[in-house]
Amino acid sequence: MKSRAALAMEANKPLVLEEIDVQGPKQGEVLVRMAATSVCHTDAYTLSGADPEGLFPSVLGHEGAGVVQEVGQGVTSLQPGDHVIPLYTAECGQCKFCRSGKTNLCSAVRATQGQGVMPDGTSRFSLNGKPLHHYMGCSTFSEYTVLPEVSLAKVSKEAPLDKICLLGCGVTTGIGAVHNTAKVEPGSTIAVFGLGAIGLAVIQGAQMIGAERIIAIDVNPEKFDLARQFGATDFVNPNDYDDPIQQVIIDQTDGGVDYSFECIGNVNVMRSALECCHKGWGESIIIGVAGAGEEISTRPVQLVTGRVWKGSAFGGVKGRSELPTYVDDYMKGKVKIDEFITHNMPFEQINEAFELLHRGESIRTVLHY
Amino acid sequence: MKSRAALAMEANKPLVLEEIDVQGPKQGEVLVRMAATSVCHTDAYTLSGADPEGLFPSVLGHEGAGVVQEVGQGVTSLQPGDHVIPLYTAECGQCKFCRSGKTNLCSAVRATQGQGVMPDGTSRFSLNGKPLHHYMGCSTFSEYTVLPEVSLAKVSKEAPLDKICLLGCGVTTGIGAVHNTAKVEPGSTIAVFGLGAIGLAVIQGAQMIGAERIIAIDVNPEKFDLARQFGATDFVNPNDYDDPIQQVIIDQTDGGVDYSFECIGNVNVMRSALECCHKGWGESIIIGVAGAGEEISTRPVQLVTGRVWKGSAFGGVKGRSELPTYVDDYMKGKVKIDEFITHNMPFEQINEAFELLHRGESIRTVLHY
Repeated sequence: MKSRAALAMEANKPLVLEEIDVQGPKQGEVLVRMAATSVCHTDAYTLSGADPEGLFPSVLGHEGAGVVQEVGQGVTSLQPGDHVIPLYTAECGQCKFCRSGKTNLCSAVRATQGQGVMPDGTSRFSLNGKPLHHYMGCSTFSEYTVLPEVSLAKVSKEAPLDKICLLGCGVTTGIGAVHNTAKVEPGSTIAVFGLGAIGLAVIQGAQMIGAERIIAIDVNPEKFDLARQFGATDFVNPNDYDDPIQQVIIDQTDGGVDYSFECIGNVNVMRSALECCHKGWGESIIIGVAGAGEEISTRPVQLVTGRVWKGSAFGGVKGRSELPTYVDDYMKGKVKIDEFITHNMPFEQINEAFELLHRGESIRTVLHY
Repeated sequence: MKSRAALAMEANKPLVLEEIDVQGPKQGEVLVRMAATSVCHTDAYTLSGADPEGLFPSVLGHEGAGVVQEVGQGVTSLQPGDHVIPLYTAECGQCKFCRSGKTNLCSAVRATQGQGVMPDGTSRFSLNGKPLHHYMGCSTFSEYTVLPEVSLAKVSKEAPLDKICLLGCGVTTGIGAVHNTAKVEPGSTIAVFGLGAIGLAVIQGAQMIGAERIIAIDVNPEKFDLARQFGATDFVNPNDYDDPIQQVIIDQTDGGVDYSFECIGNVNVMRSALECCHKGWGESIIIGVAGAGEEISTRPVQLVTGRVWKGSAFGGVKGRSELPTYVDDYMKGKVKIDEFITHNMPFEQINEAFELLHRGESIRTVLHY
């Protein structure tokens, strides 16, 4: 089968639009026609060449939504016509991780996913007979893509695919980190570092839960208006202060925040996020992805005096179990998605979407196939 | 009043036995006659001069037990004859920290305690008319010492003071870190780095809770016998392996431990303790006190993939509320203390107790007044 796709042929070059070949689904696999995809910083990070695990040539993209076209042998939970959201964090329900009840980090397809291939060790994508790598188990930058059954969340057919595609990463990650990882309580004071899609979703999640003060922090004050719409109550631009930002937040909150969230991927900000937490109980959640080999550090007394340092991947959300509820909550008006979409474009303008992201001019651009 | 005391006159010198002057208790204060005290690594750390907050000359000591002699004005919860354990972590019940229900880090007397004085800003100790500093709000190296009322836990008169003095720090810290900070579940696998009093108490706490595997780690294999008596099931000497110790533990536990505890104060071991935790849910608790200015570090992906980094001070135990139960549990045979006491000596041999600690030959030496 032929498919429109945007290929990452080599690091730090624009994607190349090509018509590629997509093989049908094998045992346990599903062929999906993407309706929409968006572009996330993780795609940009891999495309930049900075990701030590990045593979080229590959079909990037991990935030999308589509319709099942065909299922491989042994697939029982999905059938053609089902609406699905690809999951870069699978949920098999049977591995040690899934059975633990403590994490969403399913191990079922992890090893091959990291190698850019399907669980049988081969690729379904090729260009002129040469294989292309899969990416994060999703590869939403191809109109037709193949995924393991365990990497697809089946969701309501009522929901618009060009909106709920954002639940494939950013929106869910932010809300989930608040609900599942931090377990923020009503009345809490929280600090959010970085007001991209993840940071805004954290703000939304905190407002949903009834946080009392939500401090939005960004060096770009143009982000503050949108943050306010999502529920932020306080706004801090670190460039406005001489003191370290952690001290500024501590001073403004009578000793620090109950929860902080790092939504950038900057190891220095991760330290600030930890250290602005209240002594005795403040918890800091790392969501952003740091550069290769970078390390976080702090004085251990920060932890010994009661601060807790955590991280969150896909917001701790188990995709197959929980994403359908996120979609339903969107349909009921409980979860905002539309507000994240600053741009809509045809798929062919995907490089423009990357440029908008790099320049900080978009929150999310939805690309329509 | 005159009192026998062992004074830290200057850094890195033996303590000096002197007869000092002790003033009676002022408003909210209590005069205690110590029956016994032991020596902890924190005393040795301050005496060494490495503690940037260390003050000289001072009356060190923070792990003891005694009998109330006299109470100052306004003291309502204690009276002469009461048996008490001094608390370096006070519990006022009224500050933001005590009221939070989330921490034992009471702030009532913290500022002055750190300055080596009583809450009114003055000292009750003097030698030849010159004031001596208090230490950690306790100063158990003086037979007669004065403490704030909120810094004393009233305990059963049935309990032998020369045993329960160990509940003033090490034993409680280790057990509490397991119960309060980590909240270890039955069936868990845990790793304990460092088999001094704290590490052994962690092992005891884990056994009390029903941990399935308790891995005892120390470069001194002579500690393993005692660790076994407290409940350790596995024994690892890092010097026996070429791989980093975190990898050794991961290999021996099918992916890592559920909980790890750093009981040394070495920032490199703190990193190993974190990184030997199981992806998805492992939690590492820092108990050891690192050297001045030292920092911990790791790659943030360690946290993003589900490990949690915490710390614990006095095991998260609220002394006035909870220590009486620890004492009762000791009397009922539920908490072991005697096994920690490797040496007993008259108070005058205190410098020998420090030497035993430095040489790793003692777990705890109890000094009898």
